[in-house]
Amino acid sequence: MSSSLSPLPSLAELAAGFPADFLVADPDLAAGYGRDRTGDYAGTSFAVARPRSAEELAALVRRCAALGLGLVPQGGLTGLVGAAVPGEAPPEVVVSLDRMSAVRSLDPIGYTMVVEAGCVLETAKQAADAADLLLPITFGAQGSCRIGGNVSTNAGGFNVLRYGMTRDLVLGLEVVLPDGRIWNGLRTLRKDNRGYDLKQLFIGAEGTLGIVTAAALKLFPKPTQVETALIGLASVEEAMALYARARRSCSDLLSAFELILRDGLDLALAHRPELGDPLETRCPVYVLMELAAGGSVDLRAVLERALEEAGEHLLDGTIATSRAQADRLWFYREAMVEAQSRGGPYYRTDVSVPIAAIPAFLDSVLAELAGSLPEGRPITYGHVGDGNIHLNVVPPADWSREARKRLFAEAEEVIFTAVDRFAGSISAEHGIGRSKKRALMARIDPVTLDLMRGLKDMLDPDHRFSSGRIFDRRPAEPPAP
Amino acid sequence: MSSSLSPLPSLAELAAGFPADFLVADPDLAAGYGRDRTGDYAGTSFAVARPRSAEELAALVRRCAALGLGLVPQGGLTGLVGAAVPGEAPPEVVVSLDRMSAVRSLDPIGYTMVVEAGCVLETAKQAADAADLLLPITFGAQGSCRIGGNVSTNAGGFNVLRYGMTRDLVLGLEVVLPDGRIWNGLRTLRKDNRGYDLKQLFIGAEGTLGIVTAAALKLFPKPTQVETALIGLASVEEAMALYARARRSCSDLLSAFELILRDGLDLALAHRPELGDPLETRCPVYVLMELAAGGSVDLRAVLERALEEAGEHLLDGTIATSRAQADRLWFYREAMVEAQSRGGPYYRTDVSVPIAAIPAFLDSVLAELAGSLPEGRPITYGHVGDGNIHLNVVPPADWSREARKRLFAEAEEVIFTAVDRFAGSISAEHGIGRSKKRALMARIDPVTLDLMRGLKDMLDPDHRFSSGRIFDRRPAEPPAP
Repeated sequence: MSSSLSPLPSLAELAAGFPADFLVADPDLAAGYGRDRTGDYAGTSFAVARPRSAEELAALVRRCAALGLGLVPQGGLTGLVGAAVPGEAPPEVVVSLDRMSAVRSLDPIGYTMVVEAGCVLETAKQAADAADLLLPITFGAQGSCRIGGNVSTNAGGFNVLRYGMTRDLVLGLEVVLPDGRIWNGLRTLRKDNRGYDLKQLFIGAEGTLGIVTAAALKLFPKPTQVETALIGLASVEEAMALYARARRSCSDLLSAFELILRDGLDLALAHRPELGDPLETRCPVYVLMELAAGGSVDLRAVLERALEEAGEHLLDGTIATSRAQADRLWFYREAMVEAQSRGGPYYRTDVSVPIAAIPAFLDSVLAELAGSLPEGRPITYGHVGDGNIHLNVVPPADWSREARKRLFAEAEEVIFTAVDRFAGSISAEHGIGRSKKRALMARIDPVTLDLMRGLKDMLDPDHRFSSGRIFDRRPAEPPAP
Repeated sequence: MSSSLSPLPSLAELAAGFPADFLVADPDLAAGYGRDRTGDYAGTSFAVARPRSAEELAALVRRCAALGLGLVPQGGLTGLVGAAVPGEAPPEVVVSLDRMSAVRSLDPIGYTMVVEAGCVLETAKQAADAADLLLPITFGAQGSCRIGGNVSTNAGGFNVLRYGMTRDLVLGLEVVLPDGRIWNGLRTLRKDNRGYDLKQLFIGAEGTLGIVTAAALKLFPKPTQVETALIGLASVEEAMALYARARRSCSDLLSAFELILRDGLDLALAHRPELGDPLETRCPVYVLMELAAGGSVDLRAVLERALEEAGEHLLDGTIATSRAQADRLWFYREAMVEAQSRGGPYYRTDVSVPIAAIPAFLDSVLAELAGSLPEGRPITYGHVGDGNIHLNVVPPADWSREARKRLFAEAEEVIFTAVDRFAGSISAEHGIGRSKKRALMARIDPVTLDLMRGLKDMLDPDHRFSSGRIFDRRPAEPPAP
């Protein structure tokens, strides 16, 4: 008989031998580990465990194997694809990393830090900052998300353009494996070609192959100068041409290049009318660009010269002359993101296409959405310097839950089909989790699927870690004849 | 009975159905594929095949499986660890990628290119350069090595500091698998979090898990300014302090930071006395540093200010005022590398330690070498901005082959033991191949070994690809009872 049909073990069996506070006892507290930050995903766990060390977690993994329980690791619950929220079958133990939150070390000569998985990203960034160093992972949820989640989702964000994805910043990992052993790959070496680079297996694997307990990360000199500009342009094509030129004219010191379409700005202004139009000219397309540098570079002059060279291609623009002004420019983007959810749930995407294909992709998909879903309001923004578009669709505020659900399914069909046409990705930075596994499986080629399954079967043959994420749950074995 | 005991198939069986020129027929030409550039490694292949496409290679892989032959992919034969030179048992077919050498595409907006595995690195660099773009992989062998080899060894070089290892530059791969299928992961997306990042498996795997046939690579704006300085310092410690300061004061525009010890410079000067001492002051330690940028940054001013700030920490220094002067400064390094081999074979290493540990590591290991191997002349240089040291030992010119061999073994023991003490790597950028597999296996932990073996067994269960590299050959199966 398969383990999922066995009677459930008791909490006492699970907790035996661990410290008294190893499991979260208070049911209200435990419920907090069963729902993600959006509330879109919720589930009930068998128990919530809060290990203090990789060794304690490894012991828990072995115990769970003996008791037929699954495990799901949990960071800040900000991933948006349901990967870290507990499922029902087989019963899962949530592994919260929140007790493993130390910054273990920081090396200002080697430009590295070693951080435990439960450390909140913002806390790790502050520790680097206090040593005049930069941990460049930067995005909205940085005050809640945790390093282990950043690694396990290969998190992106605003600064990928300059510093890469989380994968590019990981030098080493400590991982608890599904067989209950600890893999110690926690190195700070910049160059290490001793055989296969095993840490790559666990980065972006969403907890399905191992549970990351600590990471060694690359740091950078902390920028002492930041310049921010908001530029208005006639088209997305002009925005992408500006991007290609600006990388060149700004000595690759661009740290962010965010696209906002007028529709999105209008939504922000409706929500926050006190902001006022950011530029004198009303433009179809805006770009929020940021340069960062240290040392004696005259960064303002570099930015001014770059915009001067772009000259006639720009409709309008403004350069912030103070941090407060720069914050105000960024606030337009935040207000837009905030405004989307004012009328209730909306459809969110996180897709990417080759950078040069962005204009044609957006032309095509926005025309199709206007044709087939005229009631939905498409809001487009994204880290376009990385080809990453968040193309969302906001339904009318008075629509029912059912009507919204239909709209979401139809919008997804239109958008993902266009992504396929442009050889893009249906998940640029959030991963697959539970929300995109059907869409992934519908378009994955058989060789890729075999290789992915091979890795899962090699590392987690009983599908005990984060089962039902990325892949569908393995069907329960039929009873023996 | 195991396949290695079967009678050898005929060349006609291997070649049936392929184009007439698929195998290299001329024995002299074929012999050229059996020896690496140093002549340190040589072997005899069963045949040399030169496929024109991934499909043709896939058909060859299936044929070899049917005939019980192994395969070993070959690029420019500049890897220095014997990975691409054919072995004897099981008999191996060399797969030369030299007919698959096209630059398939180049995208100046997305800053990407797609190149076939057999393209010589220099050719790919020139194609990028012609479009005002930079493919940053840069090292001595770039005129001979090929992209597939760069990917399969995760090649390093001078510019890792700024642009990362080859791994960091790969966006997508096309790979022929040991089961004879083609994995098409040839994407140019900057962000793609759809499940496991399978391309990572093949980067740095030295051909043991698959044969790379094409790669999509990240490009950068071509620098329009380069500034080069040679700095003299009192100690390695001062050099590393200069590195940490210079990253900061140069806005992370450092593109190279090469360490040379006085011993190495003396060797270069003995070999090329016409060069003369590069600085007025005779210094124990030299650093060759280079900054690169495009756009309107005043790069010379940035470098001058950075050196000014370092002030009293520098003993002496010079900034090149022309490309010719810069080439001359780099030539000291080349002359040193050249001079090492003048007295016959010498012991070469390619190790790394955490950057901050370099001074203590070198102090310790050089003292030990002086104590235990006083006849050997240690030559130390390296890409120390990445923690990567090439610490070589040159025996007296009149030593016999046997005496050298003993010295090499003793030097390796001293150096690798010191690397272990400083938690470093015995292979920073060249890989394991055949030359370091014993040293790797002597210090690998059991969990890492299990995971590495698991990957090999998953992808190449019959150990048909590059057998005997990284791992020892699997012993032939015992005859059935």
